[in-house]
Amino acid sequence: MTSDPNASAGDWSLPSGFRAGGVRAGIKPSGTLDLAVLIADGDGDCSAAGTFTTNRIAAAPVHWDRGLVPSASIRAVVVNAGNANAATGRQGLDNARRTAELAASKLGCRAEQVLVASTGVIGHQLPMEKIEIGVAAAIEAASADSLGFRDASLAILTTDTRPKVVSKRGAIGEGGKPVTLLGMAKGAAMIGPKMATMLGFLLTDARVAPDDLQRILSGAVDDSFNCVSVEGHMSTNDTVLILAGGDPSDPPLTGPDLVEFAVMVRETCVELARMIPEDGEGATHLITIDVEGALDREEARTIARSVADSPLVKTAIHGADPNWGRIVSAAGYSGVAFEENELSLTLNGTNLYRDGAPLDFDAKQVSRDLRSNRDTHIRLVLKRGEGAIRFWTCDLTADYIRLNADYTT
Amino acid sequence: MTSDPNASAGDWSLPSGFRAGGVRAGIKPSGTLDLAVLIADGDGDCSAAGTFTTNRIAAAPVHWDRGLVPSASIRAVVVNAGNANAATGRQGLDNARRTAELAASKLGCRAEQVLVASTGVIGHQLPMEKIEIGVAAAIEAASADSLGFRDASLAILTTDTRPKVVSKRGAIGEGGKPVTLLGMAKGAAMIGPKMATMLGFLLTDARVAPDDLQRILSGAVDDSFNCVSVEGHMSTNDTVLILAGGDPSDPPLTGPDLVEFAVMVRETCVELARMIPEDGEGATHLITIDVEGALDREEARTIARSVADSPLVKTAIHGADPNWGRIVSAAGYSGVAFEENELSLTLNGTNLYRDGAPLDFDAKQVSRDLRSNRDTHIRLVLKRGEGAIRFWTCDLTADYIRLNADYTT
Repeated sequence: MTSDPNASAGDWSLPSGFRAGGVRAGIKPSGTLDLAVLIADGDGDCSAAGTFTTNRIAAAPVHWDRGLVPSASIRAVVVNAGNANAATGRQGLDNARRTAELAASKLGCRAEQVLVASTGVIGHQLPMEKIEIGVAAAIEAASADSLGFRDASLAILTTDTRPKVVSKRGAIGEGGKPVTLLGMAKGAAMIGPKMATMLGFLLTDARVAPDDLQRILSGAVDDSFNCVSVEGHMSTNDTVLILAGGDPSDPPLTGPDLVEFAVMVRETCVELARMIPEDGEGATHLITIDVEGALDREEARTIARSVADSPLVKTAIHGADPNWGRIVSAAGYSGVAFEENELSLTLNGTNLYRDGAPLDFDAKQVSRDLRSNRDTHIRLVLKRGEGAIRFWTCDLTADYIRLNADYTT
Repeated sequence: MTSDPNASAGDWSLPSGFRAGGVRAGIKPSGTLDLAVLIADGDGDCSAAGTFTTNRIAAAPVHWDRGLVPSASIRAVVVNAGNANAATGRQGLDNARRTAELAASKLGCRAEQVLVASTGVIGHQLPMEKIEIGVAAAIEAASADSLGFRDASLAILTTDTRPKVVSKRGAIGEGGKPVTLLGMAKGAAMIGPKMATMLGFLLTDARVAPDDLQRILSGAVDDSFNCVSVEGHMSTNDTVLILAGGDPSDPPLTGPDLVEFAVMVRETCVELARMIPEDGEGATHLITIDVEGALDREEARTIARSVADSPLVKTAIHGADPNWGRIVSAAGYSGVAFEENELSLTLNGTNLYRDGAPLDFDAKQVSRDLRSNRDTHIRLVLKRGEGAIRFWTCDLTADYIRLNADYTT
């Protein structure tokens, strides 16, 4: 299995059976690429699965997709940036369906075989004339080479500074059947998922039954997109989709082959998810938070999220300030009822707090380490059980404020 | 009943039976006032009640006080700034007790008649030599005039830009018995209480039984200090204490007189609590959030807190950006399972979103309103029931980042 997130566009080969493209539909005021399509060309029996935001104000495309996956017959995904189609009421739902219909009529399939996703400003209706022209142009432009996928990976971005793509190739089972998995994601703010996150799209030429695909994706998202946060604000549009095409004459993966495939999906999702806080708005540090010794994984996640979302923790790390009391106190208000004397803390390898009591340490050295490394590692250890998690976030900077104090106007 | 939070120091008259003072003990590197005492001079039958942080990493003084209130015989409160005595293990607990002992020996009472509170950096042991000298000096300096209280109100501050004091005088009952209530608070960051908050101290010459006092304080805190947030990071040291002295020959208040007194306490707490986000670190807007039509008050509080703690909401208001999708989406991930079409939003009196659908509005006008007013009003209305709450927070600015990226070092 290979993985090279820094690979050049030339390595982003699409799995067989797929085409992709991205165009300028004029939805973003900046005039950059803003509409992408992913097309499964087979005989219409491409499996698809998805996970979505749990926000009660869910975007219209989320409502549309939820009713369709898992599915055995998805033909395309249409994604637009620049407009979230969220908090748009009945008209927003009509526009999401209309977007699917536009693609379906071009592809000769039913609207229910087309998934849609949106990202951008909340509360504005989609500009349907631009969407109509854009969908037609993107399907026209879609290609099976890596250039089409490159355009698609750019067209889904908003404030991201770079595309987020992971490519994996593996050989599954005793026969060593080659499998390609290609994923892309976007997200740099409004990142605080609790069930799914941001936008992520995975394409593979493995043959997988829809229910298996859904189970594998849900597990992978739980370990990846659900373990990252930028500022803890859960989006209305979080969507991760996976499409599994493959030769219809092959039987779907089962048993150990399916497990091998699940590992590929999980690793791809983890690599994509990490890229999000790494590219967090204004971020200067990627912060990895390990919580160990919790009662269970969800308890560990609760503590990690509380630390990750504390503006005081994030600003301290931005300032290379070893003010570790902010970290343990954020764990303390997470809602997990641990005892103070069962908590220990390590920051970038230096023990700062053990069993509820502070340790002597070289504050200047810890500060220098924080200042000189973009990667920061927080390790919190409890004595309650075997529950553990790895979580990622970024620091909070004046650039984040600047970017967000003036986004719509 | 009168209230004048902007009253000059001359109006901050102590209720009879109390003295107060503040000194420079050298705990703060800045060399400003950092140790305060509040002394009840009566015959040792001053009632006291308290509410405290629910953070699992509770500071040593919180542990000490929790074991003592409600009480019928408190003689003093010692407060230091510059050091939180939190996450300090066994030695921290010993130091909290020792602080009480030092005051008790000067006042001729038991250590268990002295409450303590601390605020400042977490994870450092209290400098006990400075505390010892400071406690003696503060008790020596304590006076019954308003200057002593002014010094005390300054000595409890950390990054606050101004003291926070509320004075009320009332006449309770048919006889019109005069009652004075004087409160002070501190707090400008690490403000996200869930049960009590920051530091707040109230003194009154009303006679109130300890259990009544505790019930009245808990109710008042729930409507005040538990309805404010700066960045949502719950402190390890949140403490609100009330001391009720009064003439020992008078019977404690009961019936309607007690209700009148409870109203005074509640109003004082609300006025003090509002001053905290108003003086939030780097804040340029005080944001008042009304949530109405929730199933109950706790559901309304959950939604209000979710909106108040969203960095995207706070930065939008800082930037005078009418990006209201951030507000409704923060309500959407609060955990309250409302339906999208039962939510409406008004911002500074302009209707932006009704029953789950966006409304046309003059974005430039709303932006101008946000820019020209320091006060911002968010009103979210559901259709689930009668639950309502008023909550206060502030915006998030580059100054907050600057202040917090470099606090200990």
